[in-house]
Amino acid sequence: MTDHPLDPIFHPRAVALVGVPSTGAAGGGGWGFLTSLLEQKFHERHDLYPVNPKMDEVEGLKCYPTLLDTPDPVDHVISLVPARAAPGLVDQVIQKKVRSLHFFTAGFSETGDSEMANVEAEMIARLRAAGVRTIGPNCMGLYVPDNGLAFMNGFPREAGNVMLISQSGANAGDVVQSLARRGVRFSKVISFGNGADLRSYDFFDYAMHDEQTEVVTAYIEGVQDGRKFFEAVKRCAAVKPVILLKGGLTSAGARAAHSHTGSLAGDIQIFDAMARQAGAVRAADMDELHDLIVACNTSVRRVRGTGIALVSIGGGYGVLASDAIALEGLDVPQMPQASQDEMHEFIPVAGTSVNNPIDTMTRKADEMERLLKIVAQADVIDAVFVNPIFNGPMGTRPADPGTTLDELERRANEAAAENAQMLERLQRQTGTAFAVITRDRGAPPPGTEVFLQQCYERGVAVYPSVARAARAVSRIRQWRSRREGLPDIL
Amino acid sequence: MTDHPLDPIFHPRAVALVGVPSTGAAGGGGWGFLTSLLEQKFHERHDLYPVNPKMDEVEGLKCYPTLLDTPDPVDHVISLVPARAAPGLVDQVIQKKVRSLHFFTAGFSETGDSEMANVEAEMIARLRAAGVRTIGPNCMGLYVPDNGLAFMNGFPREAGNVMLISQSGANAGDVVQSLARRGVRFSKVISFGNGADLRSYDFFDYAMHDEQTEVVTAYIEGVQDGRKFFEAVKRCAAVKPVILLKGGLTSAGARAAHSHTGSLAGDIQIFDAMARQAGAVRAADMDELHDLIVACNTSVRRVRGTGIALVSIGGGYGVLASDAIALEGLDVPQMPQASQDEMHEFIPVAGTSVNNPIDTMTRKADEMERLLKIVAQADVIDAVFVNPIFNGPMGTRPADPGTTLDELERRANEAAAENAQMLERLQRQTGTAFAVITRDRGAPPPGTEVFLQQCYERGVAVYPSVARAARAVSRIRQWRSRREGLPDIL
Repeated sequence: MTDHPLDPIFHPRAVALVGVPSTGAAGGGGWGFLTSLLEQKFHERHDLYPVNPKMDEVEGLKCYPTLLDTPDPVDHVISLVPARAAPGLVDQVIQKKVRSLHFFTAGFSETGDSEMANVEAEMIARLRAAGVRTIGPNCMGLYVPDNGLAFMNGFPREAGNVMLISQSGANAGDVVQSLARRGVRFSKVISFGNGADLRSYDFFDYAMHDEQTEVVTAYIEGVQDGRKFFEAVKRCAAVKPVILLKGGLTSAGARAAHSHTGSLAGDIQIFDAMARQAGAVRAADMDELHDLIVACNTSVRRVRGTGIALVSIGGGYGVLASDAIALEGLDVPQMPQASQDEMHEFIPVAGTSVNNPIDTMTRKADEMERLLKIVAQADVIDAVFVNPIFNGPMGTRPADPGTTLDELERRANEAAAENAQMLERLQRQTGTAFAVITRDRGAPPPGTEVFLQQCYERGVAVYPSVARAARAVSRIRQWRSRREGLPDIL
Repeated sequence: MTDHPLDPIFHPRAVALVGVPSTGAAGGGGWGFLTSLLEQKFHERHDLYPVNPKMDEVEGLKCYPTLLDTPDPVDHVISLVPARAAPGLVDQVIQKKVRSLHFFTAGFSETGDSEMANVEAEMIARLRAAGVRTIGPNCMGLYVPDNGLAFMNGFPREAGNVMLISQSGANAGDVVQSLARRGVRFSKVISFGNGADLRSYDFFDYAMHDEQTEVVTAYIEGVQDGRKFFEAVKRCAAVKPVILLKGGLTSAGARAAHSHTGSLAGDIQIFDAMARQAGAVRAADMDELHDLIVACNTSVRRVRGTGIALVSIGGGYGVLASDAIALEGLDVPQMPQASQDEMHEFIPVAGTSVNNPIDTMTRKADEMERLLKIVAQADVIDAVFVNPIFNGPMGTRPADPGTTLDELERRANEAAAENAQMLERLQRQTGTAFAVITRDRGAPPPGTEVFLQQCYERGVAVYPSVARAARAVSRIRQWRSRREGLPDIL
């Protein structure tokens, strides 16, 4: 718990789900709220009240005809009712003395219809007067794993240190699900849609104070009240890394943003300057947002200089990788002669290179560790990109033909865990950052899941390409260089 | 068969593999040549002679002590011997009257050692004088599926229409394997390494004449004899699409290229101007090379204007996608009112948009087809990006709990094939290009493999992101606009 006025909104003990559909088969988005709350076991930890006058029971839970029929108190209401029924629900929410209301319900100001915009404004005014805070309309609401709240199925049940503030529910889901596969876990995620009451700056203010949150990221389409937004981002970015992705940079994107959340997307130069002045990092696209969050929670956050070593296989791969690194303003410096000599003690000369990129083929784990250590210890090297570290030279190979798939998987997972441990050990011993580069080879090889999770937990970044790793390092360095005078949050 | 002096090199009927290792366990690269030739069933179609004095038999094939002990004639020799044994093998190759020699053997001019560079030059002079053509040294050689030649395991056995000329074996393998998963098949692939005898321009000349080859692509580190290279590319690009990727653009990349193939990488501006003047497309990186090959063999090749429709799910996704499209110089035009009205006949208004991006959620295949047809027929639209077309709204959902995994996979494959057919039908009926955008969701969903293969075969492009699809369309349009005066190869 954090001492902030919004904190109770993230920790409701009784939630009513009003307008829950009678079946999931119709495919309405509303069904997913019920199933994801059940998946998070909210109902086992707290009270969950489905509301639908046509049902007595749903998924084993008692169903109530109206919100007013549910037990007292109800802290938080999730509205799945149609827009025309929303004002009536607002009456009941006020009468029931609910603390917060989340409108999944859409069809208000974002439609561009002035009548519906008026309905929205009038509801919000009544709710505010009654002391009820509103999330939305037109959004997915809250994901708070520690409290059992979620809005999509498959979100991790464990909490983490990343808070996400998103104007889009789909993009919030994309961030959570894509990053979950890379090991990232979240403290709080808010999809706030039209932002008719609570807005992004309210959540930045909360993020700044929330002890569970160490890294803050946001997907924004239109900035509401630019001054407040800027001040809130700036205060937050002074104490925690803040990564911003702006949708609607181009006129085509801005038009899409307008019909999505009714946002008037601002000019990209203005937004960029704002982010810079606030001490935040602007991500150019969704991939970069993902990659920067990984960077902030791994050793990439602290890479000092521009010297990158690439340990890889395949001369042509090394050439293209060197180009990709250099195009991000980083260097691929030659290895000092002493390091080269040391490597040549156990690496054959023909068909390999111990200069940089280091193109070699040892399959022995101890030799690989020795090699990586020599590379990481070289003065000119600030970060080591290594590929492939597992399922390649050091990976598991099919053993005798009688080996079962289970056994192969177990060995792959074991090798993956050992490789992650080795990288953590090397980082600790050398003080140099490591980033693993996976390569898209269709279906991920066995052990991938364990490897990604364990690397992240141990502070080792994993990126899907050299270009993306180089961009993350480069962006982080730019961001740090602009933070002079701000508190050190490395 | 093609009437060109190099054609016989691609169609050897008797191959000797000299210096084949005694076992694969040691992990030498040479072992892979034997296993990939066996995988391609070269030995069942033609004659394959392993040569190693220490073995009588290897993998069920008779093994010969020296090249001179193999039956006559031998058309093509693959040399896996160490560099010091190479000159002796050259004597035997000449004596045996072999037609072509491929040196996997490395350790010559690419090392920067002038003595070894002299050995290379002296060998090539003797071979040329004897009428033997050489591929390499320091390369992987030939992949010719129609003739059963391959240099890595897992290459498709079916031939296709793409010819790849590569200075790097690893990059050649990457192109073949990555594109094979996307449905692309190859006519001939050449990894030519140091290019001491046969060089890239020789292969461009062949590519131009080869009837099986319809699209030509190359990975180049250093251009040998720039004038001949330019002329060969220009002649080839006049009649077939040519896609060039240059490694060593930056000084870091150039240094890596120098130690890889001994190449002196040229200035990027010069290479870019050369590609433009020759009528070729320059790919900025490996992903773009892949994407442009897909473009050339699908309807993306013929996209006329800049009007892109995006049919997708998730408002925020649509906003970022619109930005990505606009950043490539393309448009996301508003849908004409008539089209919007037609869509609203069966698409509900709330929570969806039938403007562009089109954000909707129908799960009925016939409605989806109707929607896509309306979109594709709009005057302002030149290409439709659609996501997700399968395993999403139209995809298979788990049926009753007794359904087996086999049955689920069968249904997924069936749905995938139906979706690919529908897209082909829509392209034919509307004359508008479709590109499917898959999204990285970890392990590919069931049916993915069938979907990718069938789309490609039916001329429907599939890209892993909107940004990459937009870039491919944009590059193809730029390339076409520069081809005025050249023969129409659309």
